[in-house]
Amino acid sequence: MLRVYGMSTSGNCHKVRMALEALERQYEWTEIDTVRGDTRTAQFLAMNPNGKAPVLEIEPGKYLPESNAILFYLAEGTPLLPDDRLARAHVLQWLFFEQYSHEPYIAVARFLRKFHPDPGTQRPLADSKMNGGYRALEVMENALKNAPFFVVDRYTIADIALYAYTHVADEGGFDLGRFPAVRAWLARVQTQPGYVGMPA
Amino acid sequence: MLRVYGMSTSGNCHKVRMALEALERQYEWTEIDTVRGDTRTAQFLAMNPNGKAPVLEIEPGKYLPESNAILFYLAEGTPLLPDDRLARAHVLQWLFFEQYSHEPYIAVARFLRKFHPDPGTQRPLADSKMNGGYRALEVMENALKNAPFFVVDRYTIADIALYAYTHVADEGGFDLGRFPAVRAWLARVQTQPGYVGMPA
Repeated sequence: MLRVYGMSTSGNCHKVRMALEALERQYEWTEIDTVRGDTRTAQFLAMNPNGKAPVLEIEPGKYLPESNAILFYLAEGTPLLPDDRLARAHVLQWLFFEQYSHEPYIAVARFLRKFHPDPGTQRPLADSKMNGGYRALEVMENALKNAPFFVVDRYTIADIALYAYTHVADEGGFDLGRFPAVRAWLARVQTQPGYVGMPA
Repeated sequence: MLRVYGMSTSGNCHKVRMALEALERQYEWTEIDTVRGDTRTAQFLAMNPNGKAPVLEIEPGKYLPESNAILFYLAEGTPLLPDDRLARAHVLQWLFFEQYSHEPYIAVARFLRKFHPDPGTQRPLADSKMNGGYRALEVMENALKNAPFFVVDRYTIADIALYAYTHVADEGGFDLGRFPAVRAWLARVQTQPGYVGMPA
């Protein structure tokens, strides 16, 4: 049985839940709290020496960290990942875009404003993430202007990875008002079979 | 004919050269200067709307950005990427580790100290990258203590991706003295068939 060690309110962890539900896979979920330090215990570091969630337990003793590596692993051989070699590379292009050019701004601003124990002290740092986040949203808006999804004409793990923090970007202080194609795509993702929302 | 749009002194670009040389692929290289703004021209943004190098031109009009997506694309079906599904996922795990937990510290510190037009003004920012960079090096050291390479018993694109900025980490102010397994691995990479050094 697959098991996810994850924090439900983390977009990186929620990606994995979205993929498992879309694929109708059976799994168990062990809830952890990264703010409380659950990713710094010896037990957790044995699963992921980099001390980050989520981790997928494939079987006891066999662990896979990194949310987007987990998405790729789960999606291989399913409709969530195209078979065509170049299309698969474009999926990876968006997964790396998400981790380098999107998450460090949009997810970090959200964390600092909503989950930090003392958000008032973090405001200058959170504010410094806004320009980078808006740049990522502009790149997404352009990509979605004439396409229903990021890579091919159907839902893939590229959409799951980018949905995870974009649909809660408002919690980071981002206004999606000037990104109509992004908003239409968020709504489109929510109609996909097996769609599951992030727990409140 | 494959064409790379890249800056030779960039680790992200050098990865692509290392993979192409290891695979004995024919390619052309168009040198660009990101500091001069070559990635912000309309021509470049048409290839990669995210405005970052490298970009692989697969054929005229067909472009693939993101260094690690390019590595995966080039390596599929070759010894640089394992066939086993879980091993492939572990390769991706290290590629995402590199872009999220390594490059933003080690590559950025190197850029600020060595390539920024006015490095003196950037010193506090460069100094702020050191802890994160050393954390990444510790994770690498642990992974390499009992293994010759990151994922399997041979050289893969996980090694190429992590080599690119680790072998010039000293230029970012990092001391590899307390990372003997990392240093032995750097030397091992340099003996691989088709190894090519970064131009000075």
